[in-house]
Amino acid sequence: MIMHYSVNKIPVGVLGASGYAGRELCAIIARHPRFSLAFATANEQRGQTVRAGRDDVTFIASDDAPLAKAEIVFCALPHGASLAWVERARSAGARVVDLSSDFRPGHGDAAAKAVYGMPELGSATRSAIASADIVANPGCYPTSILLALAPLASAGLVAPGAMIIANAASGVTGAGNSPKRELLFAEVSEDYRAYGVGNTHRHLKEMLATMATFGAAHADLVFTPHLLPVARGILSSITVPVVRELADATEPLRAAYPNEPFIEVVPQQPRLRDVVHRNVVRMTATMIAGTRAPTMLVTSAIDNLVKGAAGQAVQNANLMCALDECTGLPT
Amino acid sequence: MIMHYSVNKIPVGVLGASGYAGRELCAIIARHPRFSLAFATANEQRGQTVRAGRDDVTFIASDDAPLAKAEIVFCALPHGASLAWVERARSAGARVVDLSSDFRPGHGDAAAKAVYGMPELGSATRSAIASADIVANPGCYPTSILLALAPLASAGLVAPGAMIIANAASGVTGAGNSPKRELLFAEVSEDYRAYGVGNTHRHLKEMLATMATFGAAHADLVFTPHLLPVARGILSSITVPVVRELADATEPLRAAYPNEPFIEVVPQQPRLRDVVHRNVVRMTATMIAGTRAPTMLVTSAIDNLVKGAAGQAVQNANLMCALDECTGLPT
Amino acid sequence: MIMHYSVNKIPVGVLGASGYAGRELCAIIARHPRFSLAFATANEQRGQTVRAGRDDVTFIASDDAPLAKAEIVFCALPHGASLAWVERARSAGARVVDLSSDFRPGHGDAAAKAVYGMPELGSATRSAIASADIVANPGCYPTSILLALAPLASAGLVAPGAMIIANAASGVTGAGNSPKRELLFAEVSEDYRAYGVGNTHRHLKEMLATMATFGAAHADLVFTPHLLPVARGILSSITVPVVRELADATEPLRAAYPNEPFIEVVPQQPRLRDVVHRNVVRMTATMIAGTRAPTMLVTSAIDNLVKGAAGQAVQNANLMCALDECTGLPT
Amino acid sequence: MIMHYSVNKIPVGVLGASGYAGRELCAIIARHPRFSLAFATANEQRGQTVRAGRDDVTFIASDDAPLAKAEIVFCALPHGASLAWVERARSAGARVVDLSSDFRPGHGDAAAKAVYGMPELGSATRSAIASADIVANPGCYPTSILLALAPLASAGLVAPGAMIIANAASGVTGAGNSPKRELLFAEVSEDYRAYGVGNTHRHLKEMLATMATFGAAHADLVFTPHLLPVARGILSSITVPVVRELADATEPLRAAYPNEPFIEVVPQQPRLRDVVHRNVVRMTATMIAGTRAPTMLVTSAIDNLVKGAAGQAVQNANLMCALDECTGLPT
Repeated sequence: MIMHYSVNKIPVGVLGASGYAGRELCAIIARHPRFSLAFATANEQRGQTVRAGRDDVTFIASDDAPLAKAEIVFCALPHGASLAWVERARSAGARVVDLSSDFRPGHGDAAAKAVYGMPELGSATRSAIASADIVANPGCYPTSILLALAPLASAGLVAPGAMIIANAASGVTGAGNSPKRELLFAEVSEDYRAYGVGNTHRHLKEMLATMATFGAAHADLVFTPHLLPVARGILSSITVPVVRELADATEPLRAAYPNEPFIEVVPQQPRLRDVVHRNVVRMTATMIAGTRAPTMLVTSAIDNLVKGAAGQAVQNANLMCALDECTGLPT
Repeated sequence: MIMHYSVNKIPVGVLGASGYAGRELCAIIARHPRFSLAFATANEQRGQTVRAGRDDVTFIASDDAPLAKAEIVFCALPHGASLAWVERARSAGARVVDLSSDFRPGHGDAAAKAVYGMPELGSATRSAIASADIVANPGCYPTSILLALAPLASAGLVAPGAMIIANAASGVTGAGNSPKRELLFAEVSEDYRAYGVGNTHRHLKEMLATMATFGAAHADLVFTPHLLPVARGILSSITVPVVRELADATEPLRAAYPNEPFIEVVPQQPRLRDVVHRNVVRMTATMIAGTRAPTMLVTSAIDNLVKGAAGQAVQNANLMCALDECTGLPT
Repeated sequence: MIMHYSVNKIPVGVLGASGYAGRELCAIIARHPRFSLAFATANEQRGQTVRAGRDDVTFIASDDAPLAKAEIVFCALPHGASLAWVERARSAGARVVDLSSDFRPGHGDAAAKAVYGMPELGSATRSAIASADIVANPGCYPTSILLALAPLASAGLVAPGAMIIANAASGVTGAGNSPKRELLFAEVSEDYRAYGVGNTHRHLKEMLATMATFGAAHADLVFTPHLLPVARGILSSITVPVVRELADATEPLRAAYPNEPFIEVVPQQPRLRDVVHRNVVRMTATMIAGTRAPTMLVTSAIDNLVKGAAGQAVQNANLMCALDECTGLPT
Repeated sequence: MIMHYSVNKIPVGVLGASGYAGRELCAIIARHPRFSLAFATANEQRGQTVRAGRDDVTFIASDDAPLAKAEIVFCALPHGASLAWVERARSAGARVVDLSSDFRPGHGDAAAKAVYGMPELGSATRSAIASADIVANPGCYPTSILLALAPLASAGLVAPGAMIIANAASGVTGAGNSPKRELLFAEVSEDYRAYGVGNTHRHLKEMLATMATFGAAHADLVFTPHLLPVARGILSSITVPVVRELADATEPLRAAYPNEPFIEVVPQQPRLRDVVHRNVVRMTATMIAGTRAPTMLVTSAIDNLVKGAAGQAVQNANLMCALDECTGLPT
């Protein structure tokens, strides 16, 4: 916020900088005290200059990216297109944070080459990220849902064979900024609808595979995303059959995240306005009254472009560069 | 739209006409070819003239309402305040459609004096409404959720002891038009949050009591409402454990509602824009992939002020007056 | 709302039915008691069925349109593309209401072949519309601005050589439903900006040419449109130097429109919510305090898709078919 | 973002901290590297703790405020209520930045006791602010409009006796957060309207009095504000008769603000999204084509809560404390 010095800055690059996540990355990097932007690519918009935070960024074609100049390459290319570019960046000697699903758990063999970049899953994850060459940055919905579920599963609270129902609602930036008729203002405003129903959404596999790593392999998951008439933010409302009533349903969440700078366990219901433009997951939990078996509702809110994408990517890059995990991140 | 003749019109009155439901009632009555508005009360705004559809309506104090002049009195007073006024209207000889929760199932002894006004529950319900002196008009969330659940329960499809998870999201008119800070534009826009969590919402009892009437007493219900940044509309996403996989999950819905003018069973996901300003419930159903036990997602959309309040009230009044059920209602 | 009979209905067609104006046309025609939809074309979406009001409409290719079957063809094709299709419809024997700018005043020679379809400009205009073969349906901004200015000019109130400043703001449906990035929800929500500044907007010529017909040729016009984060509606705020102070600035407006069913002169400021989904212009006028020369502010609101496009088109078609001008139109 | 040290911090207080401007003040102070919040008052909400930026703030009653502990008191009380509290803070030895209109030009004798805090009016203004005991922080609309007009007037470009037409549109936070029905989401969304028309808005006098100080006393001003369905932001569209055509209308703006950190003169139209959450005025200018006399349109955008209120207040306080003017301010 105060002075800019370019000595000792770590050069980073962004592949796919014109999408919403890519632009958010450029903006966070512009404010980051230790990263400097070596390049930002956007094939269709190459030559264009856009504002990113307080800096101007001129897009170049991906083929022109000086990959070797970057210590960290953030890859924000579309799913499917990422795989080859990550390899290319690796060949040039860069370490990579990939924001696509290409290297995420549940998406095939490539996942084995990457570390899943959700630092709050624990110290082992943090260590793995710190030394990783490729970090698969989690999806926005999984970030919101898994960080709410992990403490319950780790504490053995999820009822055996439980059916976990995760209803989530996302702002439209989650769908990207390619011009589609269904995302026009006149179509989205005053509307709301489910999509990707029936467990068909791309993020389901990522969640199931990750749930297995923290002891929830026995549970079923029903995931129903919805499209909200807001620009940013995800709120997930997750109903979880648990093994016993808790006097304070938030206790296992607070116990799991005693010192996490980016997790806020609160007594009141989190709302999107609490989290937009911030790199946090804000959550609470409540016991459901009147059901035969003990049941808990966990609600969690994130900014899909920050903690759900660009912010978490920089958080991972901070770990990879042995910086304070919070460096340059809006809390 | 064509001509206005007042001969043979049935005089009706509205108690509590200044709220969103009350105004919608006045607007529908203004367009209704067989109803004429005898009076509209609003104590705090008495003397004020507002537009209702194409007519102007001047509010009077409730104490000045010529109750005896109305054949049907619509009571849109707040919960708790309705009870006494319904009795008063009855004493004056009027039949009543009450939009509060005071006479609804699950809300105490008064429910025994009223018929629950959800015509699509079946022909017995329709007959009871037709001859009722007091109709308890259903709540907005229950309308959206129960009409989605009833066909599954009646067909014996709901798994024994099932935990049904009803996540629903409503536009802000559902919260009324009393000025509250939390409902200001600057608070609601770009926001989304859960409320009434943990099965504490007023509508839960109404739903549980009604579910018992159509064979779902064995099931648990978890109801989580949310506040949407839209003016109107409710979308409910209901996850239901069922006894078997269905090749076409919409089949039991279509079978249950073969000729209902106000029910639309569709193949695609219903959205708020499909239903606003219309007296319909629009719904679909999908089997969930990959769960151990067969599970169905039913999504249903209504306009909370029309099918969820004023429209359904007029639908009930049409039945009480032996008119075609669709008279004057926007489909 | 009542019954549907197809005898004696007048067949009409819609060219370019998939845009917002085209869809609104189909919806109004579906409710119109004397028009029946003979065809609706949309090349890119041919074969698709959409809901229009209470009817379903299946789009065909323009080349397949049975033009000769329609008495009236509504042409809602893009500017430039309309000219040839209007000729083709004329050759097939149909009369045409063209919603593009191709036949409007100020847009070249084609204007001479058409009557400018703004009925409220006076009885001579109405007569000309009634017998016209081609009616050029006015633009949305001109409808909002000219109907506010005409009474002042006709009454000789506009100061000689006055500079009239028309600031106007439109909902995004005015920009059509082609998918453009700048019209995405995430770009438009919480935003507001001017566009087409410096008198470069297409509608300027139409306004200047029409102003000359009602005695305002001496005045200058500065027109600055803005894009509002709403789906529908235009509000114009027009500052007009006038020849004298008026005790009641609305008097000339009321005097000019004593019996117009679609003009509402009101004492309070018109707002978009007053006019959406209605075929009206709602306006008021106020004297400005403290200026050296008498100055008036006229504000006028319309629904850009109804009175600003499809509704006015049907109003013109009603006149062409010797129907009551209000037939089938939402007031 | 980095470290917090309380040594050498300048204690400041906020009177009236629960309104939108008051909260924004607390949030900016929380991030300010040289200010520390000594107290924040809110009589109705005393005892409540709210989040302000990354800090929690607990409101106290104004009567309990330790005024003497603050070097600078920001007074964000309502118009009329400010006067007495500013005197009280002065008696306690604090210097004051007052955000109400009580000390602004055009609002009576109190203005003589204060310096009008619009630093970009020039170096004399900056010097006066630096040594002032009371700074009258400008209104939001005047900030947007005067900083666009001043360069034209100072350069002698405003035509003699010109009628300047300032149409402006503001987000709803400009109307405060007192719960009023007309500001409910369901009333504001999808709406737009003018208010305070006819030169009746409180800010008119402030603008006229200030225009006289930069050589525009000869001009008339017509000011028409509008209410936008957005939370934040003001866009002003100002039509100005000028003495000659300019090849580049932005030239006088760029010439007037060569090194201003909070003024952005740009070639494209400014939009609200460019300026929200930033302490800047972003503006452009265009010549109007086709008018008899040379006429210019200047459009300028601000965040009404930042550069239009709390941000500018901190900018003034920075000057008063001999800090870098940009300290702690979001650009």
